[in-house]
Amino acid sequence: MYRREIKVLDCTLRDGGLMNDWHFDKAMVKDLFDNLAKAGVDYIEMGYRADKKQYNPKDFGPWRFCDEEDLREVAYACDSKISIMCDVDRTDYDAFLPAKDSLVKMVRVACYVPDIDKAIHLGNHVKSLGYEVTVNIMAVSHALEPDLDEALTQLADTDFEGVYIVDSFGYFYSEQIHYLAHKYMKLVPGKQIGIHCHNNQQLAFANTIEAIIKGVNLLDASIYGIGRAAGNCPLELLMAFLKNPKFDVRPVLDLIQKYFVDMKKELRWGYEMPYAITGVLNKHPRAAMAFMKGVHGSTYREFYEELLSVDDT
Amino acid sequence: MYRREIKVLDCTLRDGGLMNDWHFDKAMVKDLFDNLAKAGVDYIEMGYRADKKQYNPKDFGPWRFCDEEDLREVAYACDSKISIMCDVDRTDYDAFLPAKDSLVKMVRVACYVPDIDKAIHLGNHVKSLGYEVTVNIMAVSHALEPDLDEALTQLADTDFEGVYIVDSFGYFYSEQIHYLAHKYMKLVPGKQIGIHCHNNQQLAFANTIEAIIKGVNLLDASIYGIGRAAGNCPLELLMAFLKNPKFDVRPVLDLIQKYFVDMKKELRWGYEMPYAITGVLNKHPRAAMAFMKGVHGSTYREFYEELLSVDDT
Repeated sequence: MYRREIKVLDCTLRDGGLMNDWHFDKAMVKDLFDNLAKAGVDYIEMGYRADKKQYNPKDFGPWRFCDEEDLREVAYACDSKISIMCDVDRTDYDAFLPAKDSLVKMVRVACYVPDIDKAIHLGNHVKSLGYEVTVNIMAVSHALEPDLDEALTQLADTDFEGVYIVDSFGYFYSEQIHYLAHKYMKLVPGKQIGIHCHNNQQLAFANTIEAIIKGVNLLDASIYGIGRAAGNCPLELLMAFLKNPKFDVRPVLDLIQKYFVDMKKELRWGYEMPYAITGVLNKHPRAAMAFMKGVHGSTYREFYEELLSVDDT
Repeated sequence: MYRREIKVLDCTLRDGGLMNDWHFDKAMVKDLFDNLAKAGVDYIEMGYRADKKQYNPKDFGPWRFCDEEDLREVAYACDSKISIMCDVDRTDYDAFLPAKDSLVKMVRVACYVPDIDKAIHLGNHVKSLGYEVTVNIMAVSHALEPDLDEALTQLADTDFEGVYIVDSFGYFYSEQIHYLAHKYMKLVPGKQIGIHCHNNQQLAFANTIEAIIKGVNLLDASIYGIGRAAGNCPLELLMAFLKNPKFDVRPVLDLIQKYFVDMKKELRWGYEMPYAITGVLNKHPRAAMAFMKGVHGSTYREFYEELLSVDDT
């Protein structure tokens, strides 16, 4: 599948950091950046830029904050652009240099549907500093249709570059991806539409393909699928699917073998029954992550029945 | 997704046996049968019926042969029908009782496209004994189009119940599944079409869904996705997707927790880079299985480059 407009964004450090509080050491991150650049990935997301007044830097690795000086130790200007993510209500507006003085080229603003006004406010601030901006509307499988439509209509009036479909809970099947891709493209004309999938039902790669087929051009993926809970669309599979000669999957294979096979045994993202159960039931993975840490102390059957009986959607 | 004609076949023992030479102990198999019956699975495939003149029973567990007396120790007549598989050229025609004297209700004949005449010959023999019969055309991602068309046209003239699309190498994407489903339904009208996927690219469940959407009604799946190499479509995900009230996923969750989580650590089916690499490159998984056993002694990069340079398709 070749389409010139398709851009691949690696979210390994940012979404993967949700599994280890961003404690990736700098030598590894430098090696990762080098190899992702060699692989031809369009964007490399280095982490979040969280507000240090809300999150104590002592409690997290540097990629929860992505200070410019930390970025400069591991990354450099090259054909792969650097992105960071920030959450509404968790971001210090003063933490951004003008884009011309920063390694960062794109800022992705994450929000839920009810916070779309805040996301646009933050996005406008970042945009005024010269960055590319996207808005990533999370947990859209819990959104009310008219609210989502209004949010998308508001985003159409911004000068942001893109808007992402985010399947935070790994709940969607292909037909729902088709429906949302159509909706986003219709309501936000002229902007790039993106997709960020979670892999609870082993559908992250498949749903990314379905989004591509329907015209989505900004594709999130991560090395060996690392990410919160079941993780994301595996970068190595996506690159093989795209077949664009600008991509070279071999540096990604090297990174998987050097770091990620062992890391997966420790952090345990991927296909695990508790994550599959929250995915199937359209629930936040936090209960599954607690189960995986042994906090829950029950069987899969009990976990399933308990979640079935919780009406929090 | 509800459609009355949809039937789910569990191939845990049969395809999973390819990973442990069918050494599943009888107490476990009995428990598995009980729980799959409780779960409402339409067909439970107990294994192969291989020719004992070609395969020494001392080298394999009983489910490579599925003798009636072994089946009777672990299974019984119930709403879930029992199936077995046999390969052309590896089957003793005299090893089948008349269906009325057997626990087995369906025999699935596996073959490659060039062996379709042999498959029809074996199928006719089994059919004459009173069994339901399907033909499962393996490795269709290596088939030449005119040969496949001719094979399907020949199958249309049989009185077999079904014909399966088999993605032996885990190579197909959704668009190819759509194409094949359309072709099979057009060329084999009036028979049920089935789908059997391998999970090398994490697409087994997704491609099963795509086949369902296009009208395929016979669905193979296995507990926790067990099967050769990357394994098959996970039964638990498929049941959750189908949402038919006749299915109950909870006995499957029990089986996963009791047996399959630990078994997966030992047998290592699922998402592993060597399997992903053979899947992406449309190759037989045997090289990947050797790599997984450490026979290969090279890096992922070397394995990928070596397979890229092999022209055996």
